[in-house]
Amino acid sequence: MDSVHLGVTAKPFTWLVHMLGVVGIVLVLVWNIYFRGGLAFVSTNKAQIFNIHPVLMFIGYIFLASEAILAYKVLPGSKFVKKVVHLSLHLIALALGIVGIYAAFKFHNESGIVNLYSWHSWLGLGTICLFAIQWLVGFFSFFFPSAPDSVRASILPWHVLFGLLIYLFAIATAELGFLEKLTFLESSGLYKYGSEAMLVNFTALVVLIFAVFVVLSAILPDESEPEGYSAIA
Amino acid sequence: MDSVHLGVTAKPFTWLVHMLGVVGIVLVLVWNIYFRGGLAFVSTNKAQIFNIHPVLMFIGYIFLASEAILAYKVLPGSKFVKKVVHLSLHLIALALGIVGIYAAFKFHNESGIVNLYSWHSWLGLGTICLFAIQWLVGFFSFFFPSAPDSVRASILPWHVLFGLLIYLFAIATAELGFLEKLTFLESSGLYKYGSEAMLVNFTALVVLIFAVFVVLSAILPDESEPEGYSAIA
Repeated sequence: MDSVHLGVTAKPFTWLVHMLGVVGIVLVLVWNIYFRGGLAFVSTNKAQIFNIHPVLMFIGYIFLASEAILAYKVLPGSKFVKKVVHLSLHLIALALGIVGIYAAFKFHNESGIVNLYSWHSWLGLGTICLFAIQWLVGFFSFFFPSAPDSVRASILPWHVLFGLLIYLFAIATAELGFLEKLTFLESSGLYKYGSEAMLVNFTALVVLIFAVFVVLSAILPDESEPEGYSAIA
Repeated sequence: MDSVHLGVTAKPFTWLVHMLGVVGIVLVLVWNIYFRGGLAFVSTNKAQIFNIHPVLMFIGYIFLASEAILAYKVLPGSKFVKKVVHLSLHLIALALGIVGIYAAFKFHNESGIVNLYSWHSWLGLGTICLFAIQWLVGFFSFFFPSAPDSVRASILPWHVLFGLLIYLFAIATAELGFLEKLTFLESSGLYKYGSEAMLVNFTALVVLIFAVFVVLSAILPDESEPEGYSAIA
C-alpha cells in the first residue's frame, strides 16, 4: 500500500500514539485494579481472573501491536533493526493476547459461564487467528527464508493492507469488550452514570482515538520520504 | 487521498458491496419483524418503537451512505451526475439516521429508560454530528458555492480521509448496537445459542465484511483510471 499524500508526515501522529497509549494503559489499570478489585490468575474471587483479560488484551496485545506497526516510522537505525523490532513486538503481542484470551476462558469455566456465544468472542477469536496467520506469512515472506525481491515487493502492499484490516478488527473487538463488560455490570446494578461507567466509556473513546492515530501514522509518509520527486544529491 | 495500487480495481468489490448490503437488509428485517415483533412509531408495545432504530440505522443510514460512497465507482455518466447522487444519497442517509436515533429516544422515554449512558449512544451521536459537519463542508466546498479549483484539489484528499473515518465510526457504532441489544435480550433470558442470538451475531459479521468491501471499493482505483501513466490518445 502506497503512502497517502496529504502534505503531512506521520511524525506528529506517532507522538500522539505513544501518549494516548500510555493514557489508555493507565485507564485500563485504574478500572481493573481500583474499581474491579485487582488481578490474579488463581483466586477464589473469580472476578480477579477475568480482570487479567482486558489488561493483557490492551497492554499486551493492542498497545504492543500498535508500537510494532509504528516501528518503521519511529525507530532510528537500519531497515533490518526495524524489521526485527516489528516482528518481535508483534510476536510478544500475539503471545500475550493468547494468554489474555485464556484468562477469559478460565474465568468462564470456573464461574459456570458458557463460552463463545457473543459477537465479541467470535470477532476476537477470528481476529487473533488472522493475526497469527498474518505473522507467519510475514515472517516467511520478509524475514526467513524470505521471498525473492520481486515477490516481496508485490506482497508488501497486501501485508500492509491486511495488517491494518486485522488491526481494525482487534480495535473493534476491544470496543465491543468494553461495552459488553459494562453492560453486564449495569445489568447487575452498577449506576449507569457513575464514576466507573464514565471511566469505561472514556477508556473506549481514548482507545478509539489512539487507533485512528495508529492507522494515520501507518499510512502517512515518514519524514525521510521525498515529496513526490527525488532530491538531486 | 490517492488510490491504493494493488493491481486490482474497485469493480469486483462494488458488486460484493451491493450483494452483502442486500443480505444485511434482509437479516435486519427478519430480526426485527419476525423475531422482535415488527415496527411501529406509535404503539403500546414499546419494543416495536425500538425496532425502527436498527432498521433505519442500517437500511437508511449505513446502506445508503455506503452506496453514496460508491457512487463515483459504480455510476455511469458525468462527474456532475455522480456528485449529485453522492451528496443526495448522503443527505437522505443523514435524515433517516436522525429519524432512527429519534426512535431510540422515543422508545427510551416511553419505557422509562434513561438516555445517553452507553458507549454505543456516545459514539453514535458523535458520529452523526461529524457526518452532518462533513456533509455541509463537502456541499459548500464541492457543490455550491464551491471553492476555487486549487482549494478543492487540496481539500479533496481530506474529504475522502475524514469521510472514511466517519464511515468506520458509523460501522463501529452499528457493531456495538448489535452486541448491546443482544446482551440486553440475553440478560432477560434469551437463549445464548438460540436462533435469534446466532442471527444477530451473523448480521454483525455480514455488516463488518460489507464495510470492509465498501472501504476497499473506495480506496482502490476504478477501471477507467490509467495505471500509472497517461494513455496516448
